[in-house]
Amino acid sequence: MYKKELFENIKRKKSFLCVGLDTDLKKIPPHLLKEDDPVFAFNKAIIDATADHCIAYKPNLAFYECLSAQGWLSLKKTVGYIKTNHPGQFIIADAKRGDIGNTSLMYARTFYKDIDVDALTVAPYMGEDSVTPFLSYDGKWVILLALTSNKGAYDFQMTEDIHGERLFEKTLRISQNWGNDENMMYVVGATQAQLFEAVRRIVPNHFLLVPGVGAQGGSLEEVCRYGMNDMCGLIVNSSRAIIYTDPTEQFAVKAGEAAACVQKEMEYFLSDSGII
Amino acid sequence: MYKKELFENIKRKKSFLCVGLDTDLKKIPPHLLKEDDPVFAFNKAIIDATADHCIAYKPNLAFYECLSAQGWLSLKKTVGYIKTNHPGQFIIADAKRGDIGNTSLMYARTFYKDIDVDALTVAPYMGEDSVTPFLSYDGKWVILLALTSNKGAYDFQMTEDIHGERLFEKTLRISQNWGNDENMMYVVGATQAQLFEAVRRIVPNHFLLVPGVGAQGGSLEEVCRYGMNDMCGLIVNSSRAIIYTDPTEQFAVKAGEAAACVQKEMEYFLSDSGII
Repeated sequence: MYKKELFENIKRKKSFLCVGLDTDLKKIPPHLLKEDDPVFAFNKAIIDATADHCIAYKPNLAFYECLSAQGWLSLKKTVGYIKTNHPGQFIIADAKRGDIGNTSLMYARTFYKDIDVDALTVAPYMGEDSVTPFLSYDGKWVILLALTSNKGAYDFQMTEDIHGERLFEKTLRISQNWGNDENMMYVVGATQAQLFEAVRRIVPNHFLLVPGVGAQGGSLEEVCRYGMNDMCGLIVNSSRAIIYTDPTEQFAVKAGEAAACVQKEMEYFLSDSGII
Repeated sequence: MYKKELFENIKRKKSFLCVGLDTDLKKIPPHLLKEDDPVFAFNKAIIDATADHCIAYKPNLAFYECLSAQGWLSLKKTVGYIKTNHPGQFIIADAKRGDIGNTSLMYARTFYKDIDVDALTVAPYMGEDSVTPFLSYDGKWVILLALTSNKGAYDFQMTEDIHGERLFEKTLRISQNWGNDENMMYVVGATQAQLFEAVRRIVPNHFLLVPGVGAQGGSLEEVCRYGMNDMCGLIVNSSRAIIYTDPTEQFAVKAGEAAACVQKEMEYFLSDSGII
């Protein structure tokens, strides 16, 4: 998907919500466990209930890999279902891959060609040649970790170099030599709202994938205040706070309502900033 | 596997070679493609031919994921085959995972319980709480990226902070608060031989997983000179230079010969340093 289409979807849906598909057999409603493919059954219901209120889905690979071969089948079916039944949704594989060139090339082919997602989260530690193999697919995106939402973000990402540049800032700055705002986004955690200004000084035009709203405690208002640009520039993810709202047969209806609530908030911020 | 057993294996085999199972359908001998599971057929033959000369195997996840569900089956069969037929081999899943805590927990369970490897490579960018979930399995190891073998290692890993400490050094130093030399190793590329002294100043006792000998051009002699400690402290990986030595039906015999050559070199360095 190109940036222009993503922005059009955001304006049309009045939403920049990404629903995280962290589908865990231990957390889905028990009645689904008798289905042939409980993960897919859960995802399908969640997707149908939320698709009007969001512009993206983000399956988290850990939750599929833990089911081994069956998990990969559930993932592929989920991506296929979204593409067929809800075209225009931006699909992010949250896999945090990154390795030497020939290995990154294999991962790129797997995620962009075989599973056919729009974007993949990538870890920057190994540098340019671990990331560039992901940048050569037309209409596909690297979402590079910059400033994450967890406590451990302070261990390395905040380290200042001799010029006073923090590692997350260096990641943002250097990686602009590898890609551009048409094929690269950055992960910036919602729990780091006070740092969005620093991020925007370096990457004013890039989209940011923002986890950490909801269960992790980030504030949507602050993220919008400091992070929004004139093409919105934000994809805000919520996983647990949407998909696990209700443990009964009403789970999908309730997930839809939770997504609609977030969408309404987002509509307010989009309107307030003059985007819609 | 505990450190003591690993060291005993090294002394008994007179080898610290890890054979990388980067099994690529485009590179394996064509006659194997008619097998039901060509990846497993290739691995099985390579393992049987090399097991006497090495102490570890390292399947690279990218090469299995690219085959989707079938790839995961091949991986599980490969790990099971090593455990049953060549017990005592140290098995490393080269997956470079790492995510927020609840996600890392899922990955840990997948690799340590389900696939049942001894060790997993982990990326440090997200800090402590992305790594510690991998450290709570008795006898299992985190192999944390410190200084990688690729050109991109210079982009961030060599960045000096305001105290003159480079990022790879900080990674080594800080992560010692999370684990110890009984449950943590580090990736240090063979192409960085001149930096092994700096690494050993910070982690004198840890094992290092050393990629980059062979196809990537690192020197075994230099790695041993600067990196070996009194428990060897090195697991040196070679993938392409061993498993793709020969494209005919003789591939396994030739791989065994290549592994035996490396083992002989290693025996010399182990003997020269008084370990055997």
